[in-house]
Amino acid sequence: MRLAKKDILDMESLSVGEIQYILDTAETLKEISTRPIKKVPTLRGKTVIHFFYEPSTRTKTSFEIAAKRLSADTVSISASTSSIVKGETLVDTAKNLEAMNPDAIIIRHRAAGAPHILARLSRASVINAGDGMHAHPTQALLDMMTVREKRGRLAGLRIAIIGDVAHSRVARSNIVGFIKMGAKVVLAGPATMMPIGVETLGARVTYHVQEAIKDADVVMVLRIQKERQQAFVFPSEREYAQCYGLTQEKLAGAKENVLIMHPGPINRGIEISPEVAEGPYSVILEQVANGVAIRMALLFLLLGGPR
Amino acid sequence: MRLAKKDILDMESLSVGEIQYILDTAETLKEISTRPIKKVPTLRGKTVIHFFYEPSTRTKTSFEIAAKRLSADTVSISASTSSIVKGETLVDTAKNLEAMNPDAIIIRHRAAGAPHILARLSRASVINAGDGMHAHPTQALLDMMTVREKRGRLAGLRIAIIGDVAHSRVARSNIVGFIKMGAKVVLAGPATMMPIGVETLGARVTYHVQEAIKDADVVMVLRIQKERQQAFVFPSEREYAQCYGLTQEKLAGAKENVLIMHPGPINRGIEISPEVAEGPYSVILEQVANGVAIRMALLFLLLGGPR
Amino acid sequence: MRLAKKDILDMESLSVGEIQYILDTAETLKEISTRPIKKVPTLRGKTVIHFFYEPSTRTKTSFEIAAKRLSADTVSISASTSSIVKGETLVDTAKNLEAMNPDAIIIRHRAAGAPHILARLSRASVINAGDGMHAHPTQALLDMMTVREKRGRLAGLRIAIIGDVAHSRVARSNIVGFIKMGAKVVLAGPATMMPIGVETLGARVTYHVQEAIKDADVVMVLRIQKERQQAFVFPSEREYAQCYGLTQEKLAGAKENVLIMHPGPINRGIEISPEVAEGPYSVILEQVANGVAIRMALLFLLLGGPR
Repeated sequence: MRLAKKDILDMESLSVGEIQYILDTAETLKEISTRPIKKVPTLRGKTVIHFFYEPSTRTKTSFEIAAKRLSADTVSISASTSSIVKGETLVDTAKNLEAMNPDAIIIRHRAAGAPHILARLSRASVINAGDGMHAHPTQALLDMMTVREKRGRLAGLRIAIIGDVAHSRVARSNIVGFIKMGAKVVLAGPATMMPIGVETLGARVTYHVQEAIKDADVVMVLRIQKERQQAFVFPSEREYAQCYGLTQEKLAGAKENVLIMHPGPINRGIEISPEVAEGPYSVILEQVANGVAIRMALLFLLLGGPR
Repeated sequence: MRLAKKDILDMESLSVGEIQYILDTAETLKEISTRPIKKVPTLRGKTVIHFFYEPSTRTKTSFEIAAKRLSADTVSISASTSSIVKGETLVDTAKNLEAMNPDAIIIRHRAAGAPHILARLSRASVINAGDGMHAHPTQALLDMMTVREKRGRLAGLRIAIIGDVAHSRVARSNIVGFIKMGAKVVLAGPATMMPIGVETLGARVTYHVQEAIKDADVVMVLRIQKERQQAFVFPSEREYAQCYGLTQEKLAGAKENVLIMHPGPINRGIEISPEVAEGPYSVILEQVANGVAIRMALLFLLLGGPR
Repeated sequence: MRLAKKDILDMESLSVGEIQYILDTAETLKEISTRPIKKVPTLRGKTVIHFFYEPSTRTKTSFEIAAKRLSADTVSISASTSSIVKGETLVDTAKNLEAMNPDAIIIRHRAAGAPHILARLSRASVINAGDGMHAHPTQALLDMMTVREKRGRLAGLRIAIIGDVAHSRVARSNIVGFIKMGAKVVLAGPATMMPIGVETLGARVTYHVQEAIKDADVVMVLRIQKERQQAFVFPSEREYAQCYGLTQEKLAGAKENVLIMHPGPINRGIEISPEVAEGPYSVILEQVANGVAIRMALLFLLLGGPR
């Protein structure tokens, strides 16, 4: 059964039922990646275009592997070798891709809203693989899948999100997603990294990491996005690590068996200490494995049968 | 049935019969791209190398999709990540690729004649995807397919080509192709953009856009190739737009139902106004769709059976 | 039957029996690349990641073609479009790739030992496609395959390796491999290009090219690796060509039917004259063709059946 919608653009536009259906499907498909023959013929003859305007290893590789394990044909376009360097607008590029009859376009773009423009112009399904500081819904879905897998549920859990919330599309999508599923979200980070009005999303804000972590079921550490910051919004990396970096001591107040998450790539020793990143409660690599499953689920649910 | 030739290098070397056969085949194969399962097993086990020394979105993506919809295996080499940066000559690169037994090599290169060198050195079929300011035969073929589809014929039509003819491999291939098929070609552009002796190809030259457009069945607007011009050959973009940019008013003298074409990517508001580019007579996106069909036809006719 | 080992990291860790088994398998698989349908379903549903931190045409293309002719799914990551630009460490990248359940990772890296780190962190098979100045085992294997194919054996042959031995991972892997298989290896090059203690590998060192070539069955010319040298370790290219460049005259003392080899890409007229590179004894392009066969054999022997 397909999803009723054509595109996956953000967590706001997914219903509770749709999220559950995506997570359920991903759990079922996850097993394919552990078979000796990691491939099913479901999307044979479908064309999936991967259009990444920003560098990416894990997300791009994850999507490509997902598409190939479903037998789709994939074509990859990166900004550096494409007509973007000739000054073509996104709208024109979108219309041109559309004319080649792709079934899905996966897009990462530095401009918030780019996937929405593409979705409007295209009959193909569009999946947002990260747009500016706006949204990263597949990351939120894989995070939710990981938590549900480990805890059996999302409702009633307490999720602490630590760090540069203002610059983080991962944070925004997770806040919306977890709250929608009935979890409580507490944010902690320096005031300069906390977006104004974030409480309207339903999250609680504190400036003390320990307060956020207290009784948390999940601590999600955000990456310091050096490449996305105009000017560094805190005095030094060392000071950041001291105040906000997740260490064993800061974790003391969390629940036993707290889950430690990070969207990667990690700045080791800055936002998270190596002991915590590789400690017994870290599910960082489960997140990556679930990423393939979530992307398989989305491609399957968007393209996988008669609409 | 295969084409008798090994390579597609330029329009000069294709006969009228071969062009008709390619267009007929492309029309037949076009339907595959509209099926739910966009794939036929015709070229299973064939190896197609895409070798693009210059940036490209639409042509490269079009060729890759064409190859994959025919089930060929594709390998993509771009100059920036290849041994070109180690200073290897084209001849050596060609011989090396040849040794890996590809069935076809698709090449885009800034040097005119590069595909011809490759074709001589290789048993593989070579398709020219654009070489310097020389030729772009697959673009001409898809343009001719688009016109024939819309008008039912090519012979006797009047084709106006507007703009930077001197720097345009698209123009050169279209002039040769359309004239060969019995159409009349009129060129218009500033004197600095008109190659000396272009009349010997059989085209008529004028320096007034309206004169070229008068009674035209097709107006093909060329891209101002900023990246290919040493010094700008006209005073300013604004002046160019005023004198040569295709606008609704300049179109007044054309035939009713004139077809508006552009090879893309568009410099919107310079060589063509947005109203015209997106107007009712524009077939710019049909050109892109037909590009996939033409490239499928060529791969099929060159590789698709016992020679 | 599989190889007993998980990874191919260097020639040191391959036994004589394993090398023979790899060469035998490659000879058998070579024929596939000459069929009209160059594809067998052996590795269907296996995921092979090509992870190239350094530019490469022939090795990368060779591996990709090898994987596709065995029906594996391939995903390609290049440093310039990946999270490496975000400062992720190799260890973190490796763990992340691993979490996506690839069956093999092919890695080229400027740091010696990088493939070994990856191999320790990953259940996937790792194949070293060249690491710093350390090793390039698939190149050595394809060189040995080429010699064995032409001479019927390796034991007792005299192999001269000429040039920049110190900076050459190709040389190092070939020295170890050929000596292991019972050949004699003589090295010649300027003193500044001869690594200290290379005799401990069992090779003889001379500074006179003619002395090395005398009675040689094989003359392997190394590439002057301009991109890998801090400062040029000889006065000028012209002087190098005169003293060490392989010319017809210098070849006079070699055995009749001597084989001329070069790993490519060639600096024509520097380390080898065009007459020799393209002369009757050159097997340079056979090396390339055998490269595909060796890489098919390795993928097949590492992934091709129950372990």
